[in-house]
Amino acid sequence: MTQEFGFTLQARDAQARQGKITTPRGVIRTPAFMPVGTAATVKAMLPETVKATGADIILANTYHLMLRPGAERIARLGGLHHFMHWGGPILTDSGGFQVMSLAKLRRIEEHGVTFQSHLDGATLQLTPERAIEVQCLLGADIQMMLDECTPFPVSREQATSSMELSLRWAERSKQAFRSLAAPGQALFGIVQGSVYPDLRESSAKALIRQGFDGYAVGGLAVGEGQDAMLDMVAATTAMLPEDRPRYLMGVGTPDDMLAAIARGIDMFDCVMPTRSGRHCQAFTWEGRLNLRNARYADDPNPLDAASSCPAAGYSRAYLHHLVRSGEILGAMLLSWANVHFYQELMVRAREVIQNGEFAAFADAVKRRYGALSDPDDAGE
Amino acid sequence: MTQEFGFTLQARDAQARQGKITTPRGVIRTPAFMPVGTAATVKAMLPETVKATGADIILANTYHLMLRPGAERIARLGGLHHFMHWGGPILTDSGGFQVMSLAKLRRIEEHGVTFQSHLDGATLQLTPERAIEVQCLLGADIQMMLDECTPFPVSREQATSSMELSLRWAERSKQAFRSLAAPGQALFGIVQGSVYPDLRESSAKALIRQGFDGYAVGGLAVGEGQDAMLDMVAATTAMLPEDRPRYLMGVGTPDDMLAAIARGIDMFDCVMPTRSGRHCQAFTWEGRLNLRNARYADDPNPLDAASSCPAAGYSRAYLHHLVRSGEILGAMLLSWANVHFYQELMVRAREVIQNGEFAAFADAVKRRYGALSDPDDAGE
Repeated sequence: MTQEFGFTLQARDAQARQGKITTPRGVIRTPAFMPVGTAATVKAMLPETVKATGADIILANTYHLMLRPGAERIARLGGLHHFMHWGGPILTDSGGFQVMSLAKLRRIEEHGVTFQSHLDGATLQLTPERAIEVQCLLGADIQMMLDECTPFPVSREQATSSMELSLRWAERSKQAFRSLAAPGQALFGIVQGSVYPDLRESSAKALIRQGFDGYAVGGLAVGEGQDAMLDMVAATTAMLPEDRPRYLMGVGTPDDMLAAIARGIDMFDCVMPTRSGRHCQAFTWEGRLNLRNARYADDPNPLDAASSCPAAGYSRAYLHHLVRSGEILGAMLLSWANVHFYQELMVRAREVIQNGEFAAFADAVKRRYGALSDPDDAGE
Repeated sequence: MTQEFGFTLQARDAQARQGKITTPRGVIRTPAFMPVGTAATVKAMLPETVKATGADIILANTYHLMLRPGAERIARLGGLHHFMHWGGPILTDSGGFQVMSLAKLRRIEEHGVTFQSHLDGATLQLTPERAIEVQCLLGADIQMMLDECTPFPVSREQATSSMELSLRWAERSKQAFRSLAAPGQALFGIVQGSVYPDLRESSAKALIRQGFDGYAVGGLAVGEGQDAMLDMVAATTAMLPEDRPRYLMGVGTPDDMLAAIARGIDMFDCVMPTRSGRHCQAFTWEGRLNLRNARYADDPNPLDAASSCPAAGYSRAYLHHLVRSGEILGAMLLSWANVHFYQELMVRAREVIQNGEFAAFADAVKRRYGALSDPDDAGE
């Protein structure tokens, strides 16, 4: 297995890309969906089950793990992979997004962010250097620079100064990564600029000059709506180099993801499949189902006859019974089936890109999933 | 595979017995522990995981299932085995115990019990005939007669009349079973008599005259203490035929079970391993651990190095983190490890009975588990 991080483009269909990311911990087939393992667990799933759905990589949240159980503790215990029994690649965010969305009494300064833990009120600081240090303590294979997650809506002036602060933090993140990271680990830059295409362009260009292993599109799916999101995605990917993976953070619905793939995105993460699974919602090839609905009480059909997931083989009547009874098994099976569905969506996306049939596939999925709104994505 | 129900005694060590129960759905190795699947799910476990722990049979609760989702519904959906994806034998209780412990406004009459559902307050009736009808609708392989679960403490007079009512219900249960049950299904009688040995003796003798496929010891583990419980077990098993399985209902701790095996019991059920698993408690070969305890925060050791359960291979530090974070995976792993431990205890019990080393094994376990109190066992 390679000891270097790399990306190979294998097929294209218009702007949609199919490829693979190589890491010392294994290959990530792209387009890729990363299940979210906020607190060192993809909620209600065993790691071997996550793997069996087809996930090549998972995401973990730096903010949550630095607060509990603590990055130094995880390092002493052998690193995040060993701690949570996940042998494949792990991407960690920088913690910035969740500091903005979950922590109390945030103060953003040039040096970094000072905040109070939402768990115990302790005052903590997150700087570009500390964010990288924590990610290295965790042993993350793909690490993210600390950025300021620009709120929405925001004025052009605020978006500009926020984006520029993120660029300065990008440079400091890169310096810290250079001195702390292990061979084969990768650092991604994050393009900001809110809904202003020219700011996105400036941000992307500056990050490319600094040079990162991959590029993320941040600050989207925060209320701007799908059209604006996709416009920003297109404006950003148009600037990005072909030979680096592109990651749209915190997105999204099946329809969102396919629309973003059509605009050149390679990687996604979202809490939607697991969070929905804990709230009686199932993603199927027929569309989204709410298993609490009384119509399923006597429905002997499997959750999703078109899915190869073992969890999708349980009857809708049984799943209805489990969620009505508040049984943990309901959350387990629906989370499993949903993550599996997201992975099948990526399998199919990779196939149709190779076959030149991506647009037709994306249209078919949109007919079932076009009405879904953006998920709330503050980690789970 | 046999289409008949049967029991074969294979080895003895003093009063301890090792054998096998044959059913159309498979063999049950005894001594056997039956994980409790109250609402058609062994809580927080996949059925294939339950099977992989070594469980040959599970228990389901008639009271819970008749209320939700309903016995007729389960029958329409193909029966309980199909509904919950469990292909092995299932034992169902009669519903009586939970009517006494969970339902409101109970009225016990000669005909049966009238009660209000704890879910929606609906007035329902459970008679010996209805209890068998429900169990046949579920498709239970081993069914229990409806009995009155004599409360504790109770006067000799009350215990006598309660036991005699149960004997009349036994006869009616048997008649109903004869007309409704499928070939290969079995019906167990339940010995009552509170803590009065001569009442236990009368109850056992009368049931044996009626003739059942197996005999349960009921009305124990309800607060009488371990010594009294074991005295009643010994008094009862002394009366029971050698060629029928004996089931001590709702028991218990590892120590309780081994002490009962020493007195001739073959089968057990208890919510303790799964309920404890949802409450941060782990059963290990070192004794019981509370994973919430801060001492485990930095403990890199596996939960139980002596266990072959995959769940017991996760570090105590990780499990501590999961339970402190309220993660479902904590309940999943601890339930799994606990049910596996209970099954390993039965595997070892069967081995040492064959080797004539049962007493030494039971003593060793007692040193680790002797202090545990009786579980609350009103179904999960």
